[in-house]
Amino acid sequence: MAHVQKVVLGLAVVARAAGTFTKLQTPTPTVRTFSRSQPLSQNVPEALWNLGRLNHVAIAVPDLQIARSFYRNMLGAQVSEVVPVPEHGVSVVFVELGNTKLELLHPLGDESPIESFLKKNKAGGMHHICIEVDDIEAAVTDLKQKKIRILSEKAKIGAHGKPVIFLHPKDCGGVLVELEQA
Amino acid sequence: MAHVQKVVLGLAVVARAAGTFTKLQTPTPTVRTFSRSQPLSQNVPEALWNLGRLNHVAIAVPDLQIARSFYRNMLGAQVSEVVPVPEHGVSVVFVELGNTKLELLHPLGDESPIESFLKKNKAGGMHHICIEVDDIEAAVTDLKQKKIRILSEKAKIGAHGKPVIFLHPKDCGGVLVELEQA
Repeated sequence: MAHVQKVVLGLAVVARAAGTFTKLQTPTPTVRTFSRSQPLSQNVPEALWNLGRLNHVAIAVPDLQIARSFYRNMLGAQVSEVVPVPEHGVSVVFVELGNTKLELLHPLGDESPIESFLKKNKAGGMHHICIEVDDIEAAVTDLKQKKIRILSEKAKIGAHGKPVIFLHPKDCGGVLVELEQA
Repeated sequence: MAHVQKVVLGLAVVARAAGTFTKLQTPTPTVRTFSRSQPLSQNVPEALWNLGRLNHVAIAVPDLQIARSFYRNMLGAQVSEVVPVPEHGVSVVFVELGNTKLELLHPLGDESPIESFLKKNKAGGMHHICIEVDDIEAAVTDLKQKKIRILSEKAKIGAHGKPVIFLHPKDCGGVLVELEQA
């Protein structure tokens, strides 16, 4: 993971006064002196794109009705009916949690993207997390430069009808990360 | 998973007018006739406890600094410093996502609860999800009656200083589910 060290230079690191959080992409401007020939953007780079909220946690399940029953009848969660999404090879049940949702996925059709995951994880398990971004095209360009592997050449329309990309789990600490245009 | 069928009787299922969502624990009262000897609570059971928001997604990682760098430098997320939580056998980095957070976990000390997970998942991976509840004691009583296995006899104080329980992954579609008092 040597590429993790290849941090884009020139971005200021913010040590937030409120606590221990630091953020790289939206730096706090520091006191600087500009000449007319130096546009602001050269001194304080704008964030190319911003990470947003957690859209959902996707959970692959071997039996959609049993999983739906668990969240509805055991935990009392608000759940959807089973929604077939044939163009993405899955049937989905949405579990609403107020601030975000779980998506229970089961293979649909012959070439489901979660078929192999369920073969390896017969009891089911967490498949990916989806985080919203404000500019998916900028994210694609930026992440390619940072040598993060993207599982498609460019963004594709995802299950919510919005452009998405998936990042390689080996570049993301073992987690399949989906980024979705907000 | 025969216990999934053991739904508490007497709760009305709500087919929400707005869409496809149904919820069991907060039933819409239907038209009923009561006698004085029949208190309301026998006819329309109150929800014993309610599921709340997703508190966090916990991700076990083999190297906390590399994982922290990924979320901070590659994705531009707001991340905390490394926080040691020796009483729970983990070091944690919090990744803020606005509506919820990721918690990157690495073993700390000799008997870390995530040690065996990382041995099986050397690249790291999603370890559990944590959902808030409004009454953890009621949840414990209710889930025991519903034959959902809880990994401790009663609620314990979790890493946030609040009572938590963990539900057996085999009863939760392959996912380790933590419930935390809101």
